[in-house]
Amino acid sequence: MENSGLLIVISGPSGAGKGTICKALLEKDPSIHVSVSATTRAPRMGEVHGENYYFLTMEEFKERLEQDQFLEYAKVYDNYYGTPKENVMEQLQRGKDVLLEIDTEGALKVKEKFPEGVFIFILPPRIEDLKRRIMNRGTESEEDIKKRLEAAKEEIQKIHEYNYGVINDDVERATLDVQSILSAEKLKTERNYQDLIEKYI
Amino acid sequence: MENSGLLIVISGPSGAGKGTICKALLEKDPSIHVSVSATTRAPRMGEVHGENYYFLTMEEFKERLEQDQFLEYAKVYDNYYGTPKENVMEQLQRGKDVLLEIDTEGALKVKEKFPEGVFIFILPPRIEDLKRRIMNRGTESEEDIKKRLEAAKEEIQKIHEYNYGVINDDVERATLDVQSILSAEKLKTERNYQDLIEKYI
Repeated sequence: MENSGLLIVISGPSGAGKGTICKALLEKDPSIHVSVSATTRAPRMGEVHGENYYFLTMEEFKERLEQDQFLEYAKVYDNYYGTPKENVMEQLQRGKDVLLEIDTEGALKVKEKFPEGVFIFILPPRIEDLKRRIMNRGTESEEDIKKRLEAAKEEIQKIHEYNYGVINDDVERATLDVQSILSAEKLKTERNYQDLIEKYI
Repeated sequence: MENSGLLIVISGPSGAGKGTICKALLEKDPSIHVSVSATTRAPRMGEVHGENYYFLTMEEFKERLEQDQFLEYAKVYDNYYGTPKENVMEQLQRGKDVLLEIDTEGALKVKEKFPEGVFIFILPPRIEDLKRRIMNRGTESEEDIKKRLEAAKEEIQKIHEYNYGVINDDVERATLDVQSILSAEKLKTERNYQDLIEKYI
């Protein structure tokens, strides 16, 4: 990991606002590279290959899966989604930080393969806020909302698997928290030991 | 450690500027409690008991030593110096952060007793800067300067024992680094797990 960028994994329950925080983080630090996922689902109107997703055929996806080319993958209904490993590794080796915004299941799979990543869990200010945010979308039934909240509680119980927990009570402040985490991680002696020794000794 | 303040240990070789950084940090965050050391040496002009040091008799110091009342102690020539444990613990339990500015030998002794502290090593921009800073004091012989530089190199080789390394190329920026470290440490799930679970589950 010497001289390498940070793999930043931002995760958390649906509705906690991880997307908003990632967007704000990238505005403050455009040098961060965003990992683009691969999927077998068809592109939607306006979606661009290599920007929103890498759109692959089922055959292409499975071939890459066999070659262990994904940091993690999941099957959702009939479609596959995955995080291509090679591009992430290339950027990290160039010293670039790479951001992965990903659900909690994917995050913990990435951690198995890449434990030196920085795993940040985004929390809603209160559990009731999740409910409100999910309801405001207006697309979910009462039953679905209940299921999502139960899922969120289960996800939060696994927060000890993450390095940091950031409460999204205010996007600006929560983004500053994430920035502090990244600054601190870069100052860790375990990430810099060799460099420091070469510089001073 | 739940709900507890952080024990912040700032150390590094003589001449790296740890005192300047501690002063700047306290100006930005006056809520941090500074640990006052105990010593058997006589007070100098203007020094105040309980502010600069706790001035103890040899008998008092040794009694406290026997009662394991120090986080660390050292004998320098004929005098003892030590960090009183009780006061530090009390402040931490109240949720206050406690700052310890200490030489590298003392820092590593504190780490043995209190590994959950945040151990920050302050580095000079370049090893030559140490030499310049020590020479500018004008109090040391050529031989002493050489010895100090050798000692500094040995200290830097133990930097992996610290959590973070901060290069003091600019006091303002280095102090911001320390502040980022403290913010990030407070966001660690290992320090907050119980609180988070109680809040959300």
